[in-house]
Amino acid sequence: MPKLEPYSRKLPYSYQLGVFPALMLLEARPECAARLLLHPQGLENEGVIKLREICAKLGVREELAERVLRRESKKDNCFAGLVFNKYDCALDPSLNHAVLCQISDAGNAGTAMRSLLGFGVKDVAVVKPCVDVFDPHVLRASMGAFFKLRVKVYENFDDYRAEFPDRPLYPFMLDASKPLNEVARAARPPFSLVFGNEAAGLPPVFATYGQSVRIPQSDEIDSLNLAVAVSVGTYTFMNGEWEMGNGK
Amino acid sequence: MPKLEPYSRKLPYSYQLGVFPALMLLEARPECAARLLLHPQGLENEGVIKLREICAKLGVREELAERVLRRESKKDNCFAGLVFNKYDCALDPSLNHAVLCQISDAGNAGTAMRSLLGFGVKDVAVVKPCVDVFDPHVLRASMGAFFKLRVKVYENFDDYRAEFPDRPLYPFMLDASKPLNEVARAARPPFSLVFGNEAAGLPPVFATYGQSVRIPQSDEIDSLNLAVAVSVGTYTFMNGEWEMGNGK
Repeated sequence: MPKLEPYSRKLPYSYQLGVFPALMLLEARPECAARLLLHPQGLENEGVIKLREICAKLGVREELAERVLRRESKKDNCFAGLVFNKYDCALDPSLNHAVLCQISDAGNAGTAMRSLLGFGVKDVAVVKPCVDVFDPHVLRASMGAFFKLRVKVYENFDDYRAEFPDRPLYPFMLDASKPLNEVARAARPPFSLVFGNEAAGLPPVFATYGQSVRIPQSDEIDSLNLAVAVSVGTYTFMNGEWEMGNGK
Repeated sequence: MPKLEPYSRKLPYSYQLGVFPALMLLEARPECAARLLLHPQGLENEGVIKLREICAKLGVREELAERVLRRESKKDNCFAGLVFNKYDCALDPSLNHAVLCQISDAGNAGTAMRSLLGFGVKDVAVVKPCVDVFDPHVLRASMGAFFKLRVKVYENFDDYRAEFPDRPLYPFMLDASKPLNEVARAARPPFSLVFGNEAAGLPPVFATYGQSVRIPQSDEIDSLNLAVAVSVGTYTFMNGEWEMGNGK
């Protein structure tokens, strides 16, 4: 039984901590679950009982691992967690995408993913250098949404463009000429919404890749939080489509 | 010269850490600045030079305080910070408000405030129990926006309603009957957008206080992040008004 290492982006596995998010992982990606970690004080917990039932059916080994749970969650009362194998996804070419370029903050990445799932964009390209998408902080902020998305990491933006050469790109830029609502009204799916990183946004060359988009905002702020920009942009572009059964 | 205590919500003062946010504090609330804290290695920094000039003009005392900066920022390279006196604000009865009920996460509170300023809502009611709005984590997430807002803390929601009895209230609720875009189109300012806390949202009684609002979202997520909900809701209700010079 190999020893579980502290989380690192170099490892082939990661940790999904917490009872509810672990249940979401089992629902969405049962084939990735590797080991169920249990806290001796959580065995009566209803969610833990359910986790153990599902893992038993899947043949996922369980073990008491209070120390590992405490180390990875930095909490004393984390009742359960799953060790899972990192995996690859392909993006669906027929659906809308979000492209997160060089996103560096794990909380922003996870919160953006939660919104993307909520607003019906299930295909997410993440362009390096970026946070490890399997970082437990990303998973935690995504509230389990990560496992219901198709997330693919690209070495650079050109690789993404080469794979999907024919779709309209909408780069979000502070100095774009057209405001969000106007561009969103004219957009025809499948499209890609492209966002830059927290500090610098997208480089000017992105304005030549497609119709750039500005989220109208007061000049009293420098910019919006990145997860907020992704959410407002996606909400406006999708405009309720996720309620009409168009999601896959 | 009194000793500077570690930040606590009980203290009459707090800390604004970082060069750029400290400059924003001096611009927006110069009368609250109490002491300028300097790191010996940051004295050549352009922003620090500007901070020192403004503080000299204002008569704000400066001091080398590497230890306090490190303690409060938990970083070694925080070049400057301001000690400032907490202050009270009154909300403008003629303008739109956001009401954050029992918000508990400092990052959400600050990120929501950044968006509110960006989308032209400068009057923010915060209903207890809640995070200390002067908590350095709130200020940091707000990226300086906090000081440009009028933030008032209320003991309970009834106190807020009693002070502003005549305006329409729009409580954001997961089970509201009407979707965001429809309600926002019909809204007439000045109105109040009301948001519940991270875990539980607003109690059902809020649906009787005004027209409740639902942000359309896939049933694959339980809810949106609170700062995201505030941002998407406010963006849609304000619909570009902040670009037409209507902000105060």
